[in-house]
Amino acid sequence: MAQKPSIPKGTRDFNPEQVAKRNYIFNSIRGAFQTFGFQPIETPSFENSDTLMGKYGEEGDRLIFKILNSGDYLNKANEQAYTEKDSTKLTSSISEKALRYDLTVPFARYVVQHQNEIEFPFKRYQIQPVWRADRPQKGRFREFFQCDADVVGSKSLWQEVEFIQLYDTVFSALKLEGVTIKINNRKILSGIAEVIGASDKLIDFTVALDKLDKIGEEKVKEEMRSKGISEEGISKLQPLFTLSGDFESQIESLKSILNTSEEGKKGIEELAFINEAILELGLKTAALQLDVTLARGLNYYTGAIFEVAAPKTVSMGSIGGGGRYDDLTGIFGMKDMSGVGISFGLDRIYLVLEELGLFPETVSKNIEVLFINFGDKEALFSLKAIKVLRKNDINAELYPDAAKMKKQMNHANKRAIPFVVLVGDNEMESDTYTLKNMVSGEQLNVSLPDLIKQIK
Amino acid sequence: MAQKPSIPKGTRDFNPEQVAKRNYIFNSIRGAFQTFGFQPIETPSFENSDTLMGKYGEEGDRLIFKILNSGDYLNKANEQAYTEKDSTKLTSSISEKALRYDLTVPFARYVVQHQNEIEFPFKRYQIQPVWRADRPQKGRFREFFQCDADVVGSKSLWQEVEFIQLYDTVFSALKLEGVTIKINNRKILSGIAEVIGASDKLIDFTVALDKLDKIGEEKVKEEMRSKGISEEGISKLQPLFTLSGDFESQIESLKSILNTSEEGKKGIEELAFINEAILELGLKTAALQLDVTLARGLNYYTGAIFEVAAPKTVSMGSIGGGGRYDDLTGIFGMKDMSGVGISFGLDRIYLVLEELGLFPETVSKNIEVLFINFGDKEALFSLKAIKVLRKNDINAELYPDAAKMKKQMNHANKRAIPFVVLVGDNEMESDTYTLKNMVSGEQLNVSLPDLIKQIK
Repeated sequence: MAQKPSIPKGTRDFNPEQVAKRNYIFNSIRGAFQTFGFQPIETPSFENSDTLMGKYGEEGDRLIFKILNSGDYLNKANEQAYTEKDSTKLTSSISEKALRYDLTVPFARYVVQHQNEIEFPFKRYQIQPVWRADRPQKGRFREFFQCDADVVGSKSLWQEVEFIQLYDTVFSALKLEGVTIKINNRKILSGIAEVIGASDKLIDFTVALDKLDKIGEEKVKEEMRSKGISEEGISKLQPLFTLSGDFESQIESLKSILNTSEEGKKGIEELAFINEAILELGLKTAALQLDVTLARGLNYYTGAIFEVAAPKTVSMGSIGGGGRYDDLTGIFGMKDMSGVGISFGLDRIYLVLEELGLFPETVSKNIEVLFINFGDKEALFSLKAIKVLRKNDINAELYPDAAKMKKQMNHANKRAIPFVVLVGDNEMESDTYTLKNMVSGEQLNVSLPDLIKQIK
Repeated sequence: MAQKPSIPKGTRDFNPEQVAKRNYIFNSIRGAFQTFGFQPIETPSFENSDTLMGKYGEEGDRLIFKILNSGDYLNKANEQAYTEKDSTKLTSSISEKALRYDLTVPFARYVVQHQNEIEFPFKRYQIQPVWRADRPQKGRFREFFQCDADVVGSKSLWQEVEFIQLYDTVFSALKLEGVTIKINNRKILSGIAEVIGASDKLIDFTVALDKLDKIGEEKVKEEMRSKGISEEGISKLQPLFTLSGDFESQIESLKSILNTSEEGKKGIEELAFINEAILELGLKTAALQLDVTLARGLNYYTGAIFEVAAPKTVSMGSIGGGGRYDDLTGIFGMKDMSGVGISFGLDRIYLVLEELGLFPETVSKNIEVLFINFGDKEALFSLKAIKVLRKNDINAELYPDAAKMKKQMNHANKRAIPFVVLVGDNEMESDTYTLKNMVSGEQLNVSLPDLIKQIK
């Protein structure tokens, strides 16, 4: 016998139950996206390599899956690279296409390419898989879905307000209570860097600060020192490490720390505006929290930065994130296109719902009734009834073979089918059906209209 | 300015309207799959190359997209192939993964890999994209979706009956009337080959016969001659070329042609069984037709062969197809796993519905109401109402900026939003909303509950 086949590491098969649960999450997200006025687009799984390469940094370039050209691809191979056996240098001459690495760059490409057909501000959502040649580990895969919603073409802060409401709407719909929506603003971070005299080290500074939760105050300070941030600067940061309390009192503290930075003050103003609007509008189950350590590594955020934390009862990283970027499409030569967007982490949301037992029992809408097959005459009679049941939106099927009764009943049990119907000579003569409830064991002889009622 | 970006040839961007129309078709197919008891699975976009290679013939191997290994892939390159610059020979040493070429082979791999978790007979459906490095042309793409439903683990002919009903159900749901479901049986083709003394040339014979519609009787005969089928044999075929009439009379003709072939008689018996069951059960809008020239090029069908033709008013190739195969999983070492399945051609169905104007007007569920933004105070007041509308499943949004009224009204017009709401001082004071119907131009001043009623 041949070797049992397998799939590439970091990829997954999804069985019917898993597909149903994933679709439950997708549908909740999609439904909220739509009521908020977002419209779906889809882009190809692979893009021209030059659309993707150079957009995610050196590490990103390495993690992009490249597609080998078809035919005699070595014909056009870069000769020098070929002679030197230099893989990195050779790639672009034997591979013109690459798998999507995220949904943001393809979206930017879409906006620029279709700018004349798009009515701005453009609110789009996109739910598609992306691929990364990352080392697979628990919860990290080489193929996974991203669920993004973005608005481009407006700098209005009302968008940020709406995205917070959108997060709240989705997680409330999923019955996932106790979610924390953390917010920060790049301008706050810039302001702090300015105040401590480290404006030229903004990235080093934010990368270090971002680790506060993980490695603690002392190690963060150590890292800052090693990056050349002065002791004086670090001591000015002290209030930041101990910043606590509610949104308003944090805002007050920031006002005193940042009173010499114009940019910092602008950031405070934006945060305060958003917070006040959310207080007025109210959130259903989520909480909004200001977190000045939030930086999300990504350098392209220019305003608000979001991150969503799962309820404290589960230990799980962020289940969503996003922010405002002022130059989404600049990489493709289209300037001044401000945007703001958020993303939902499907795989982690799945794990959280699973751990908390929040998937509805009915989520994997399985078959509801199986007709036992006693032979061709009975099968035909059954299929006539099945046709009517299906018209009434009841998922029904006939066991395909006239196998032993026991085998068929076992099949119904293994698939957890709630009802079976038995049709023999008596039933055919009287035009009735014997319905067996597989949970209670109860049996009823009923007409077709009653069969429908009983199953529903 | 940088060059305007583009996408790889043979791939497509889908705008919101196109996504909505495609989802309309997907949802109709998915809904029918589920009421018929099929369960969804999903497999990774790429498989290990050895899972796919060699399964689709030489031409197929060429059309499979290969993914370049990550890192220093030349390190493991086949030295001889590298020295000889032999692209074909080099590939397997620098590429271990390949994009899915269809859904059938990954399904077979899935069944073998998960055989211990699967309860047979297993009815699965799968709706996912596949990729082929084919020359792109009108209606043929390098990335496209397949929608497959298969049952494995039963040889019952009731499955074939159900698949015909399933086709009828889906196309009726799509309001696509006048579809023809053509059926044939590999055993009929084998029987005919046997009768004309060309059993060893079955494939040549069926490939030629399959072209009857396209190239006509004389050219088919020519091709058969060129493949070494005798004049005597070809003359025995004559009744086949003129076979006409309804299902039953064709069956009668076949009985006389095939009376010396056991296999042919078995094929007739199967076709007759299926036809009688369908006559008893009835079809809603589709017609079932016996077509003995139907071979579908694919060599792996062993019983029924299906193909669905669009209504005669549109010129379009087949919009679906399938059949029975007796050894789906043999390629992965698991024997005796008979299956039968069908597929829907999404892109062609899309074109047919478009041409016949069959997409419902409401399909692209756009935003229903836009609130004009007159400033922050008005915006906040509006967002409170919007929150209530969304709770009532009304897709509503606020124009993000307090732009000029005219600009905002234009935006509503361009996006074909049916209603706008105007909120100024008067409205805020009286807690009312001015609702403007963008089609009729009519304006009403209403309370929030009435606003909901009017929009619904």
